[in-house]
Amino acid sequence: MRRLDARQPDFDAALAQLTAWEESLDADVNATVVEIIAAVRQRGDAALLEYTARFDRRQLAGAAELEVPRARLQRALESIDPVQRQALETAAERVRSYHQHQKQDSWDYRDAHGNRLGQQITPLARAGIYVPGGKASYPSSVLMNAMPAKVAGVAEIIMVVPAPDGELNDLVLAAAAIAGVDRVFTIGGAQAVAALAYGTETVPAVDKIVGPGNIFVATAKRMVFGKVGIDMIAGPSEILVIGDASTDPDWVAMDLFSQAEHDENAQSILLCPDAAYLDAVAGSIERLLPTMERADIIRASLQGRGAMILTRDLAEAVDISNRLAPEHLELSVADPDALLPSITNAGAIFMGRYTTESLGDYCAGPNHVLPTSGTARFSSPLGVYDFQKRSSVIHCSPEGVQELGRVASVLARGEQLTAHARSAEMRLEE
Amino acid sequence: MRRLDARQPDFDAALAQLTAWEESLDADVNATVVEIIAAVRQRGDAALLEYTARFDRRQLAGAAELEVPRARLQRALESIDPVQRQALETAAERVRSYHQHQKQDSWDYRDAHGNRLGQQITPLARAGIYVPGGKASYPSSVLMNAMPAKVAGVAEIIMVVPAPDGELNDLVLAAAAIAGVDRVFTIGGAQAVAALAYGTETVPAVDKIVGPGNIFVATAKRMVFGKVGIDMIAGPSEILVIGDASTDPDWVAMDLFSQAEHDENAQSILLCPDAAYLDAVAGSIERLLPTMERADIIRASLQGRGAMILTRDLAEAVDISNRLAPEHLELSVADPDALLPSITNAGAIFMGRYTTESLGDYCAGPNHVLPTSGTARFSSPLGVYDFQKRSSVIHCSPEGVQELGRVASVLARGEQLTAHARSAEMRLEE
Repeated sequence: MRRLDARQPDFDAALAQLTAWEESLDADVNATVVEIIAAVRQRGDAALLEYTARFDRRQLAGAAELEVPRARLQRALESIDPVQRQALETAAERVRSYHQHQKQDSWDYRDAHGNRLGQQITPLARAGIYVPGGKASYPSSVLMNAMPAKVAGVAEIIMVVPAPDGELNDLVLAAAAIAGVDRVFTIGGAQAVAALAYGTETVPAVDKIVGPGNIFVATAKRMVFGKVGIDMIAGPSEILVIGDASTDPDWVAMDLFSQAEHDENAQSILLCPDAAYLDAVAGSIERLLPTMERADIIRASLQGRGAMILTRDLAEAVDISNRLAPEHLELSVADPDALLPSITNAGAIFMGRYTTESLGDYCAGPNHVLPTSGTARFSSPLGVYDFQKRSSVIHCSPEGVQELGRVASVLARGEQLTAHARSAEMRLEE
Repeated sequence: MRRLDARQPDFDAALAQLTAWEESLDADVNATVVEIIAAVRQRGDAALLEYTARFDRRQLAGAAELEVPRARLQRALESIDPVQRQALETAAERVRSYHQHQKQDSWDYRDAHGNRLGQQITPLARAGIYVPGGKASYPSSVLMNAMPAKVAGVAEIIMVVPAPDGELNDLVLAAAAIAGVDRVFTIGGAQAVAALAYGTETVPAVDKIVGPGNIFVATAKRMVFGKVGIDMIAGPSEILVIGDASTDPDWVAMDLFSQAEHDENAQSILLCPDAAYLDAVAGSIERLLPTMERADIIRASLQGRGAMILTRDLAEAVDISNRLAPEHLELSVADPDALLPSITNAGAIFMGRYTTESLGDYCAGPNHVLPTSGTARFSSPLGVYDFQKRSSVIHCSPEGVQELGRVASVLARGEQLTAHARSAEMRLEE
């Protein structure tokens, strides 16, 4: 694992190079997705069936077969290991309870002139959740994407998940049952995104599409943005650990692994002012790595994108972290509360040595859908607020309109928008 | 102005056709914007100066001349008509006071196991505001885009506004001074968006770019999304008026004009269950239209995209409105509170006959940057929340980690992510 030293003159350049990540815009992928979206818009179910035959190798008699019956979800829930079911239910309950704190209520007030001003806050009517198929089909993602919509009061949650060769993951179906997903369709790829955005005879159009997917899914989401809302486009997952040398080095090594095991592009960075501690963690990595099931992926990720960075002090570590705006930030220090107020950019902050990231990934309560690639500078974890929307409410009284009307008239005339001005002036008393 | 009748069998199709709006994706525009962004990223100020010479016909000695000195803003403020200055200051104060209600605070709680869970809410560090030049250079837009950022606590607000042939609008500069904009650069188009997203030697990179612009600006914003945050991409402006025949028809006609005068693609729709009232408003339109300064634009907009729709009753009018999710909705009825709870989709709701839209455009307090083209189904007015971001905070105690760690371990093993599982297991007591 590469070592950097924040005191070296070339540090900034090395750090920029290490963390550079730009989504590749592939012209072929783009063209394919344009074609798939157009086909689904024009031919609806027929196109869905064709793409499902081609990409998932499934010959279906009709589009009705794309829907997974409610009974099948319930059966999955009853068939899984009771320990797993209990864990999913505990996680769901904790995620629900955390997200309830995010729910926002309508508000209003009256100004000095008696005008009423406020916002009416309402849930989206229908949300679509994309769940990848195959190996990256994670029940935890179903919970994390569906529960905020549920808490927001979204009336109908539609899940799509491809079933390559007809195979479905029972844990994923069980999670859908627990999260209260309303309908599940076994479609995937750009065609599933197009179906959710525009609707087909069988799949209802939704107002917003969330959830992770491959490059075809991400490209399709970008293209339908505007017709529907989308969540962020996720880059590779990242962890940044700030250490003060007080945590068992094995623990930190395993925390770095837990990010690196996602895929080779995942990024694990450790910042610490103590060079001997970096050596100790390097030793733990060397010792533990061969014992890991996903050792090859972890090694590739740590070698390609990982780093240990020696800093002058903890304050400098925090500065560097704020610059990188990591998706996951572990403050693996004795007094994390001393650092928290100075953390300005991070998707999720894991405080103290006991709070390993995987608790947040699964069951602590906060969402595991977090801004990646530095986007925590301006965006937030997926939350209930992503499934609520606001309408401004303005109610002027006959008296209250007098001052407002005069101000609006002056400003509208200053912009040469005289119909604006006159519509206000008409409400004024002579 | 076209008349539709909600009781006719072809109504749904006619309505869909009337309100269809799809952003045109122009391949030439796309290619130009790709080139401009690449040039600004590679050559920074030099590219900015070239494009400013080419598009705005300005020969500048150096990039420093792109910045408008603070003293110039102050001079503009002092030079404008005192009535206009007073109106701008009143509007700014009202907008500030409304937006303060949107500010969100960090929160946390402890679960039954003593784990602390919450969100730390912080402002973006730096926001960029795009202000169009020339005729569409509106001081009200400066206030509406800058004030929410200011209230959120954004440390630095950078405004860009092109100055074609060196011309700048003093009202716009005065509004920037009032809103507390920190720095102003006279650049525009895709090159300004690129400069804000990536930074140049002179223009600092920001975290989010908001504000309206032409097709080049909108295309550039779409392309830099991910590197920075952006606000929505606005379509043509729209108003939908629901009337119960109790408002003076001249008032409603002028309200429809005030939308139509923006441009020929703007859309004005009136819904009412009383055919005689629709006739009366049509009469007002005919009588008032020749008296309007922007009569040609208004006529083209009303003929091309306007409509009067006869509905069975007010409930049906509300249903149609919810389907369209209008940017501006006027409830020009005697009892707007009776309808408000059933309004699910709208950017801003103007209650009762005195609350004409232009009050909201300028000075009532709510933002005038609103979701267009049906996007109010899933998005919200620009607000303080667009300039704040959230970080999840999780702090597990040594005792609190015990239950969470076991649940995380079960779920991680169910997903074959064993480093995740082991990092949790390490924190468990034997």
